[in-house]
Amino acid sequence: MHSPPTMSIRNIIDALRGETGFIYTAKARELSKKGFKVINFGVGQPDFPTPKHIVEEAKNALDKGFTGYTDVAGIPELRQAIADYLNERYNSDVKADEVIVTPGAKAALFLAFAAYVKPGDEVIIPDPSYYMYPEITKFLGGKPVYVPLKWMGGDKGFELDLNSIENSITSRTRAIVVNNPHNPTGAVFSQREMSKLLEIAMERNILVIVDEIYDNFVYDGDFKSFISFNNWRDYVVYANGFSKTFSMTGWRLGYLVVRKEVASKLTKLAVNIWTCATSFVQKAGVKALKNSWDSVREMIETFKRRRDVMVNELRKVSGVEVFKSKGTFYVYPNIEKVLKKMGIDVETFANRLLDEKHVVVLPGTLFSETELGKTFIRLSFALGEELIAEGIKRLREFVERL
Amino acid sequence: MHSPPTMSIRNIIDALRGETGFIYTAKARELSKKGFKVINFGVGQPDFPTPKHIVEEAKNALDKGFTGYTDVAGIPELRQAIADYLNERYNSDVKADEVIVTPGAKAALFLAFAAYVKPGDEVIIPDPSYYMYPEITKFLGGKPVYVPLKWMGGDKGFELDLNSIENSITSRTRAIVVNNPHNPTGAVFSQREMSKLLEIAMERNILVIVDEIYDNFVYDGDFKSFISFNNWRDYVVYANGFSKTFSMTGWRLGYLVVRKEVASKLTKLAVNIWTCATSFVQKAGVKALKNSWDSVREMIETFKRRRDVMVNELRKVSGVEVFKSKGTFYVYPNIEKVLKKMGIDVETFANRLLDEKHVVVLPGTLFSETELGKTFIRLSFALGEELIAEGIKRLREFVERL
Ligand SMILES: Cc1ncc(COP(=O)(O)O)c(C=O)c1O
Ligand SMILES: Cc1ncc(COP(=O)(O)O)c(C=O)c1O
Repeated sequence: MHSPPTMSIRNIIDALRGETGFIYTAKARELSKKGFKVINFGVGQPDFPTPKHIVEEAKNALDKGFTGYTDVAGIPELRQAIADYLNERYNSDVKADEVIVTPGAKAALFLAFAAYVKPGDEVIIPDPSYYMYPEITKFLGGKPVYVPLKWMGGDKGFELDLNSIENSITSRTRAIVVNNPHNPTGAVFSQREMSKLLEIAMERNILVIVDEIYDNFVYDGDFKSFISFNNWRDYVVYANGFSKTFSMTGWRLGYLVVRKEVASKLTKLAVNIWTCATSFVQKAGVKALKNSWDSVREMIETFKRRRDVMVNELRKVSGVEVFKSKGTFYVYPNIEKVLKKMGIDVETFANRLLDEKHVVVLPGTLFSETELGKTFIRLSFALGEELIAEGIKRLREFVERL
Repeated sequence: MHSPPTMSIRNIIDALRGETGFIYTAKARELSKKGFKVINFGVGQPDFPTPKHIVEEAKNALDKGFTGYTDVAGIPELRQAIADYLNERYNSDVKADEVIVTPGAKAALFLAFAAYVKPGDEVIIPDPSYYMYPEITKFLGGKPVYVPLKWMGGDKGFELDLNSIENSITSRTRAIVVNNPHNPTGAVFSQREMSKLLEIAMERNILVIVDEIYDNFVYDGDFKSFISFNNWRDYVVYANGFSKTFSMTGWRLGYLVVRKEVASKLTKLAVNIWTCATSFVQKAGVKALKNSWDSVREMIETFKRRRDVMVNELRKVSGVEVFKSKGTFYVYPNIEKVLKKMGIDVETFANRLLDEKHVVVLPGTLFSETELGKTFIRLSFALGEELIAEGIKRLREFVERL
């Protein structure tokens, strides 16, 4: 007897990891239903509404009947607006025909990986990392090579381990992934690190896949964009999007920047998978970039205050070592001492904190294949200051009671 | 000297075919700009606005701030609405957790192919076909096996060649693709053909990837949906969407139906590529399914009249043999005699018709890897009756002048 053909799904799909923290958010939902007040530090999106002028622009476009297929690479005015924005902001020289509009930054990253990573290729991924980099690498038959960040303690936080990265390069290395500002650690890598990384890429003729989706969530110090290097065209494929900056996660709008010879070829893949990003969403995207950014600036101010509250409160918890995130809306504290004292692993910690105190934190193991996941947790500060204070208070009770 | 790493895009991407008929629509755009009145039979979307109640529902959802990430498989109410709709219409037993909502039917088909087709696998594709089936097969490292439809002449049109399909099955055959109603030929395959095809699939333990996106565009006779077979779960992966039925092409909303064990695994791929379909678009999708279908019915009536006009006019052109499409909004006439008389190939025909008469038709070679492309052209009747009449008049002048 054969098993029916619909049952024999490919192993490679079966082995993929799904949504980060799905079991925790599902459990949180159940607890909420039962009437418990759950505090969710697992969220990955701003809790702000999309600014009104952006919403209105989408509604206008709908009313005008702008509801048909668009160019695969996006409507020309959005491609131009993205190029203009990047050039003004990062003093770059991106052309409209080097921009491909996609249904989210993830889809842009998918194009980037699919363009270059073939079976057997190695992709160097600083660890911990956003989950889609290794998963898409595996889907394409490539091999993720995890290089741990250097944990410099609560004061200095995380740095790229440039020596290790260099030493991990083999003849099969195709690309290095750089996510800056960095999810989940909150690190913003320095200009020096970025320049050095580009040097390595140049010397070894390796591609750099860049994800700067949190580039507006920078609270302290400088941020060096990879698109601002003179020779980005030869080494860099660059992804960004509207989800976080404009609180447009559900809208699905992102983009890839890549030299034009490749951009035109990648539309041939995009047209076979999703055709284009939603038509009227693209119009709203133009508005988002061109109109006043006041609401974005206000949101970032709020996030900065929240970060301060979260870090201050966490630092009061004994055994927790916290780096004050320079970017993103996550903190990634080291709870090694707590785990030792409690005699449990990080997943049990997250599960029990949720069961007993109704607080969601995500265990580092969801983001890491190395030791760096086993003693860290990720908390999002995309929620109000009072909730943050209350949540950390509960966490503290949970930790110190024992 | 190495070439820079961004230049070395994978061959498999480089070899993909892009948007169907891109060169023709680009040329048409140029001609329009120069002031010529171009008649475009190349369009692949209804020329109707999206019904107003659907637009209003999207605007409501936007106003209510329904703009965050949704469940990867879609909002529960839409999954349920899709299941209800299919069950009522096709007397099936689809459950909500067997539905995955996707950004377009294409994305649904991508999931279907990605789930099952691995490098070296063969996929049987009746030819001519919608371009994405062979392209995605190739992207995944599989091999498209083209089996020509049987051309039975202007009266009977196109049939599946079930013997040839059966004879094309090898130990590497993974799936057969069925698009019904059929783009580009306008065929609606019979209940007998569908049952026989399922029998073959059952005997040989082969998957059937089904694309019924034109199932509301049926003008004559019956339509047998693959989802109405009792044992669909074992053999069928089913794609459909909102693009054509509700004139929502730019909205990007489609769905895949597949047994639940697989549906839950496929969300793990979807979350790594596009996360979810646009949130407020999903709300509009619920409205589309649940509200009155009057506007859809009116549109289909209009399309039926247009088809009649197009077929009648085309039948007046000497040397053109036309099957009266039973479904879709395309006709696929055989112009072999015309090409012989003119001594040109079908691509030259399409190019010269555009240059000289400003009429876009697409050469069959865009849809076919077999002989069936070389003497056919595809014309869409998604435009007004007067334009259709005028366009065919020009075509007739072009053909008969010589
Ligand atoms: C590092 C990183 N890249 C990309 C994304 C995906 O963004 P989008 O919603 O544009 O697909 C996220 C979202 O969480 C992210 O954290
Ligand atoms: C046969 C067929 N399948 C799928 C599609 C894609 O539909 P969607 O817009 O939902 O991706 C089309 C659109 O032309 C089509 O003709």
